Amino acid sequence: MDLDLIRELVVKSDTKIVLLVIDGLGGLPSPDTGRSELEAADTFHLDRLAADGLCGMTVPVGIGITPGSGPGHLALFGYDPLQYRVGRGVLEALGIDFDLRREDLAARGNFCTIDDAGLITDRRAGRISTDTCAALCRDLKDISPPGIELFVEPVREHRFLLIMRGSGLAEGIADTDPQQLGVPPLAARAERPEAQDTARLVNEFIAEARRRLADKHPANMILLRGFSKWPELPHMSDVFGLKAAAIAIYPMYRGLAKLVGMTVLPTGSTIQDELATLKERWRDFDFFFVHYKTTDSRGEDGDFAAKVAALEEVDGVVPGIRELAPDVFMVGGDHSTPSLIAGHSWHPVPFVISSRWCRPDRAENFDENSCRAGGLGTFPATAVLPLALANARRLTKFGA
Amino acid sequence: MDLDLIRELVVKSDTKIVLLVIDGLGGLPSPDTGRSELEAADTFHLDRLAADGLCGMTVPVGIGITPGSGPGHLALFGYDPLQYRVGRGVLEALGIDFDLRREDLAARGNFCTIDDAGLITDRRAGRISTDTCAALCRDLKDISPPGIELFVEPVREHRFLLIMRGSGLAEGIADTDPQQLGVPPLAARAERPEAQDTARLVNEFIAEARRRLADKHPANMILLRGFSKWPELPHMSDVFGLKAAAIAIYPMYRGLAKLVGMTVLPTGSTIQDELATLKERWRDFDFFFVHYKTTDSRGEDGDFAAKVAALEEVDGVVPGIRELAPDVFMVGGDHSTPSLIAGHSWHPVPFVISSRWCRPDRAENFDENSCRAGGLGTFPATAVLPLALANARRLTKFGA
Repeated sequence: MDLDLIRELVVKSDTKIVLLVIDGLGGLPSPDTGRSELEAADTFHLDRLAADGLCGMTVPVGIGITPGSGPGHLALFGYDPLQYRVGRGVLEALGIDFDLRREDLAARGNFCTIDDAGLITDRRAGRISTDTCAALCRDLKDISPPGIELFVEPVREHRFLLIMRGSGLAEGIADTDPQQLGVPPLAARAERPEAQDTARLVNEFIAEARRRLADKHPANMILLRGFSKWPELPHMSDVFGLKAAAIAIYPMYRGLAKLVGMTVLPTGSTIQDELATLKERWRDFDFFFVHYKTTDSRGEDGDFAAKVAALEEVDGVVPGIRELAPDVFMVGGDHSTPSLIAGHSWHPVPFVISSRWCRPDRAENFDENSCRAGGLGTFPATAVLPLALANARRLTKFGA
Repeated sequence: MDLDLIRELVVKSDTKIVLLVIDGLGGLPSPDTGRSELEAADTFHLDRLAADGLCGMTVPVGIGITPGSGPGHLALFGYDPLQYRVGRGVLEALGIDFDLRREDLAARGNFCTIDDAGLITDRRAGRISTDTCAALCRDLKDISPPGIELFVEPVREHRFLLIMRGSGLAEGIADTDPQQLGVPPLAARAERPEAQDTARLVNEFIAEARRRLADKHPANMILLRGFSKWPELPHMSDVFGLKAAAIAIYPMYRGLAKLVGMTVLPTGSTIQDELATLKERWRDFDFFFVHYKTTDSRGEDGDFAAKVAALEEVDGVVPGIRELAPDVFMVGGDHSTPSLIAGHSWHPVPFVISSRWCRPDRAENFDENSCRAGGLGTFPATAVLPLALANARRLTKFGA
């Protein structure tokens, strides 16, 4: 959907929209029972919502494409994830709640192992502990290429975040990770002329890091990838005319919401805390993105029963949201995370929208088979936001 | 659909296609009965057509987008309404059957009220009567900026049509309607350099109109918008190889048909007259667009029962059309106009195609739920024409 078209059609209204994102929502049937996580779970309230509302299956990026968290959420927020790309460095920064600024250049780092000849023998330095990682990051923190402020933040195990802060830093630096063993790390190479100065600064940092890590085997070198700056996405207030708020426990999702201009609301550590935050701030916003993570985590663990339990947990907040009487209430997912795959997958994702203006369909349950037969059919996730605006009577007619 | 591709594949044939457009066809269920207008109506012949044919739901512009009559029809005629835009001024001219020429610049006008300070106090001049509007239009008719022929035609209540005829008139004039009260009307501003002369002429007209209207309170000023010229759309004969005719009672739809090069056939004032015209001219054309308006009008009135009655009326001509044995017979709508909304809406529109070559589906009734479960699923309205051509054996193979 063309954002310029939507921007042209948006009208003011005081209607309210809630989008509950159940991360990694879709699943696959257990070979033992033939039932998916959603089919196995007792999700009474979601089923009732499906019966009342209009169901379908969203395709986050394209048929066969497995989305990361970034593209999966951007699509639900109405942004074509193929057009609006968020670099890995920036995602890593969002993921640890780093206060990224517009002049910052972010990269994802790995500690790795090189041999005496300088050839890579382990791209993950034997997966050192997060504590070791933090200590090593402290060792690198005060490297300061001239004119640049530097941040080296531990993430998890061998992974860290590199931020260079300063004026004139450019994107367009190729990864230094050759993605294979037995070869040396690559130099940071400028992919465009305007990135040459930045590449030089990165290479200075790498050289000094190598010196300081020389006796830290197995973590005696670093690899950097996903050099990226804050992506300039049009804000939801500008494109959709929405005063939007995000309620999410994990930093990554708060960060993605910030990219599109949502106000991130402080909340607690449970889905009940998120519901309480939604209630407290109900009057202050038009649009609420509420994020629930556990379904994805348990799916990634490959733990079918635990994903079922997580679905039942999030089901419990549905009545509380409905009590607020949003004009439009939608439940969907950023992608599927089938326990059988123990990771994200390309499968379409169940979706339901409920409003006064939904043409009812015959979908009676909130699961993959029922939603697929729903009135919305299988459709691009980028259409979720326009559909919400239409149902919230926030779009005027196109053409006379 | 890429028109160049279709043009490349079109082959000659003597097959005949009928497209019956039931304006504002789609609806929403009545809260009392749970049945939509189509479900409530006794549409025996349309139901039989659905049972014999292949059903689906068309999306006129995009998910969540409510189309005006222009985009809704262009899509059914095979033209992407986002690519081919028709200005409001041109649509207003088409709507009153004004004989628009290629050199004409059209704008939609409102009589409005300004106070002594020149600030707008009512954008619609208290909705003056159509008779008053006609008298005021006569007062403005003989204003003649040098080199320009001028037409000022009453439309309805405070609305009128302004046509400037002359060589070198350009599009790209911004609206003079500021769309708010308490501010003065805007001057006509050129949005491109080549429109500067035109803007000057428009401003001369506005200045003189203001003088002449000074004592005509509440209609003491005018606002103009949607400045546009005849849009150059490829004709159906050129793109689709069709000798196409339009049978429509209302000027707007005859006008839209003219834009794509259809021959507009004179007809009477009822759907039975339209059927008679179709029969009389059956030998002369390959493609017939037959338009039925009452469903949309009664939907816009919010009159559920009257929309049901209109559906039953148009159902009555279906056997007469089938008796002609068109190779392809299609029934669809330009958009939905649910009585509950009392206006156009974004909901997909029921559609049926019947030909020797349709793969039958399980849709047994012509209504929203049945068509949604039909063999065509939910698909873009711009695919209707290519589908018709295929079923009429008027498209050759793509690629060897």
